[in-house]
Amino acid sequence: MQRALDIDRSRFADWYQAVVRDADMAESSPVRGAMVIKPWGYGVWEQIQQELDRRIKATGHDNCYFPMFIPLSFIAKEAEHVEGFAKEMAIVTHHRLKMIDGKLQPDPDAKLEEPLVVRPTSETIIGDAFARWIKSHRDLPLLINQWANVVRWEMRPRLFLRTTEFLWQEGHTAHASEGDAVDETLKMLEVYRSFAEDTLAMPVIAGEKPENERFPGAVNTYSIEAMMQDGKALQAGTSHFLGTHFAEAQNIRFQNDAGGMDFCNTTSWGVSTRLIGGVIMTHGDDDGLRLPPAIAPRQIVIVPMLRDKPEDAEVLKYCQELVAALNQERAFGQPLRAFLDTKKIKSAEKRWNWVRRGAPIIAEIGPRDAAAGVVSFMRRDDLRDGDKVKSIATPRGEFLAGAVGLLEEIQAGLFAEAKARLDANIKSGVTDWKGVADYYAGGDEDFKGWLKVSWSKPSGAALEAVDNKLKSLKLTIRNAPLQQPGSFAPCLFTGAPGVEEILIGRAY
Amino acid sequence: MQRALDIDRSRFADWYQAVVRDADMAESSPVRGAMVIKPWGYGVWEQIQQELDRRIKATGHDNCYFPMFIPLSFIAKEAEHVEGFAKEMAIVTHHRLKMIDGKLQPDPDAKLEEPLVVRPTSETIIGDAFARWIKSHRDLPLLINQWANVVRWEMRPRLFLRTTEFLWQEGHTAHASEGDAVDETLKMLEVYRSFAEDTLAMPVIAGEKPENERFPGAVNTYSIEAMMQDGKALQAGTSHFLGTHFAEAQNIRFQNDAGGMDFCNTTSWGVSTRLIGGVIMTHGDDDGLRLPPAIAPRQIVIVPMLRDKPEDAEVLKYCQELVAALNQERAFGQPLRAFLDTKKIKSAEKRWNWVRRGAPIIAEIGPRDAAAGVVSFMRRDDLRDGDKVKSIATPRGEFLAGAVGLLEEIQAGLFAEAKARLDANIKSGVTDWKGVADYYAGGDEDFKGWLKVSWSKPSGAALEAVDNKLKSLKLTIRNAPLQQPGSFAPCLFTGAPGVEEILIGRAY
Repeated sequence: MQRALDIDRSRFADWYQAVVRDADMAESSPVRGAMVIKPWGYGVWEQIQQELDRRIKATGHDNCYFPMFIPLSFIAKEAEHVEGFAKEMAIVTHHRLKMIDGKLQPDPDAKLEEPLVVRPTSETIIGDAFARWIKSHRDLPLLINQWANVVRWEMRPRLFLRTTEFLWQEGHTAHASEGDAVDETLKMLEVYRSFAEDTLAMPVIAGEKPENERFPGAVNTYSIEAMMQDGKALQAGTSHFLGTHFAEAQNIRFQNDAGGMDFCNTTSWGVSTRLIGGVIMTHGDDDGLRLPPAIAPRQIVIVPMLRDKPEDAEVLKYCQELVAALNQERAFGQPLRAFLDTKKIKSAEKRWNWVRRGAPIIAEIGPRDAAAGVVSFMRRDDLRDGDKVKSIATPRGEFLAGAVGLLEEIQAGLFAEAKARLDANIKSGVTDWKGVADYYAGGDEDFKGWLKVSWSKPSGAALEAVDNKLKSLKLTIRNAPLQQPGSFAPCLFTGAPGVEEILIGRAY
Repeated sequence: MQRALDIDRSRFADWYQAVVRDADMAESSPVRGAMVIKPWGYGVWEQIQQELDRRIKATGHDNCYFPMFIPLSFIAKEAEHVEGFAKEMAIVTHHRLKMIDGKLQPDPDAKLEEPLVVRPTSETIIGDAFARWIKSHRDLPLLINQWANVVRWEMRPRLFLRTTEFLWQEGHTAHASEGDAVDETLKMLEVYRSFAEDTLAMPVIAGEKPENERFPGAVNTYSIEAMMQDGKALQAGTSHFLGTHFAEAQNIRFQNDAGGMDFCNTTSWGVSTRLIGGVIMTHGDDDGLRLPPAIAPRQIVIVPMLRDKPEDAEVLKYCQELVAALNQERAFGQPLRAFLDTKKIKSAEKRWNWVRRGAPIIAEIGPRDAAAGVVSFMRRDDLRDGDKVKSIATPRGEFLAGAVGLLEEIQAGLFAEAKARLDANIKSGVTDWKGVADYYAGGDEDFKGWLKVSWSKPSGAALEAVDNKLKSLKLTIRNAPLQQPGSFAPCLFTGAPGVEEILIGRAY
């Protein structure tokens, strides 16, 4: 039987587009660089949001909402403080349209005195509130999160991975001491790591970004990095320790025990709809998407095989009871999500729709199943035996009793598969530049993983030289993993004594 | 004992501002007209979202996300089709900032070829997707919802009630027949009515807006109208039957059974963060906010009375166990939300904070309560006996067993109180303009409810004359209630035979 997609993973970029399209996740919009997130894609985002939101709240953070427009003067203040400040943002200059010469256009009489910038991130506008809210050490720590849309103008947009508008959460916190803020930065990095691995079944390496990849204004930037099925890295989340830089620029101060005024130490951290791209490129196969059950909007889909015959009623009743019984169960700490697909299209078409969308378990129920009290189903994580699709027939009671366990098994299996790929494709032992060049000689299309190499952590111009060297092979430093060995080989780039291991690879 | 607010409801507008501030709901931001929604206010919004989202999904709608930027040409197309098209919107004209003469400003080289409008509502951009998605009658009905931020430039902003940026949901649906679309419009109006009454404990009148108050482009607009404690009406939600107007402008067509192409009938409907303003003005009292338990982020707050003494540990343990036991319960179909307030401030200060914020049940637990196994609590809906605050001491087991019932009782009580006020202040029997003028003679500050009057449903210029007459007394037609009598008095405005009863009143 042929694959559900008309393209395989060897042409990875085209395969990705095909999965996004055929799994009905998202599409391009008439607004350049901005996407329409369709119901199945948005359903995945809702699952991501709900679970991550629980974890963010469980670590003591409250949700707020801040204005999406930021006065240009706020941005200008940041620009003064921050080298490498990015300037690609959407700017609102007028607040009214007018019909002039029969053409609707910005009304020249409604030009804003001060332009407004659509938030690319909210440090400045939230910092302004922090400066008002924080008076004494009793107001600290202040732990805030926001779910919002943000805009960064993208010249080379790609669905989910790089879009002009995207959805994310951004955490912003203020602390009385540097130690508290560093702890918070690492705590949220760990929330991201465990969320990515437990919920998205996407193994990641948590570590610190090199100086040249820091968030502008940050003292330290940490990331989680995931390996896609083409071997490239996807930065899937970041957590920043900002020191007192933003507090100084925005006068975020508190009265300390001694009665003096100290600047706060602040942090920020975020993940976005980019995670959905990561899930697709981690778990998708030649038949389309495979969704980890923990984030599948529909975990078990029941497709009744109806033929406009009298026995249809029996089949439907059997399916309805099955879905109702499944929805009484709980999986991954939440009510199980089973769904009966009664759309009026052929059942084979429905089956392939759900295969392409990655529903973890797809059951097809015909009159014989209903009569025999059997459930015939496919596991999306283990769909085929050679070219043949595997269908498993199980007595109804057994299926019901095992459904939650099966979903957990699928979740664990997807993680184990991706973890094995990650582990197998981080190569150690390369100690010179020639080794790097040889390893990545095959060009962009070849599957290559990452190298773990020792370096002397150069700074400034010396780091720039390393960065340029890497760029010549389209490589970047991903991060310095939190887990480090006790001793190091000499620096691959400079020959100086090594002080740290870093991961290098190609990246999105 | 003095009231928790420094102002009473006789100065209603000032009272409203004080409640929003002292209940820590929201505040003005440095961006004119845009607010910061603080944790307690956003927590209420999250409860509103979660429950309304369940109801929107239960009626078959899927969530999506569409770009917030709309090409000006889309808006221009709408403007051509729509009389009374509102033009106050935020317009993006540039996509990059540049340092010019030492000043950060929009880069003239990054001027957009076509300006983008920040969505004031999304009919045009969603309609564009509908035109792509809908091919045959099998794709219908198409039932979509979106939770999003929208922008409408406000010259006289007011927290929650009228802000330049606000949060809302907007439903958009397409149907094969006019009948189906009308049914959808009325179904969602009923979802809003029941949600407002069941969840917000805010009684409303559902009805049809007059022609001059219709959404631009709509065939019919329906609303729910709530009465605030100053007697004014708050339009709390709208549902629009759009006929084929938008489908014709955007070419949303489907192949009918006969193979021909028909235009779809579409609908749209929305509620916003304005609902929070409605909740405040419906339930607040001289001590601040009173939240209906169904939307209170914290339904039962436990304040331990700690004195930095050894017995504190016992008190804390007792409180922790109480909160844990309460959080095992379910109220209003969701896990009960109990909270232990361990913030390091005086317990009296905590108590008043929670009174002002409107937590439905506030328990204060001291060493004697813990030792005796008693819970001493206040009901926020029934706080005082004269000036004295009522504290109720109940054995722990009894309190636990009765907690869910008590929350339900508070919810029902708040609704009954507001319903009695609404019913008592809709006055019938006024049949001439003099009666109207006399009734509203007292000026804007006097408490006045609404009049229910008979009219002949004039159109065009005749309606405009009625509208102007009403405006002279700052009155508007709120809606024509769905429930109508069998016969009508003559039209109050024209003397012609009456065909409908309408509500008139002052409004937000």
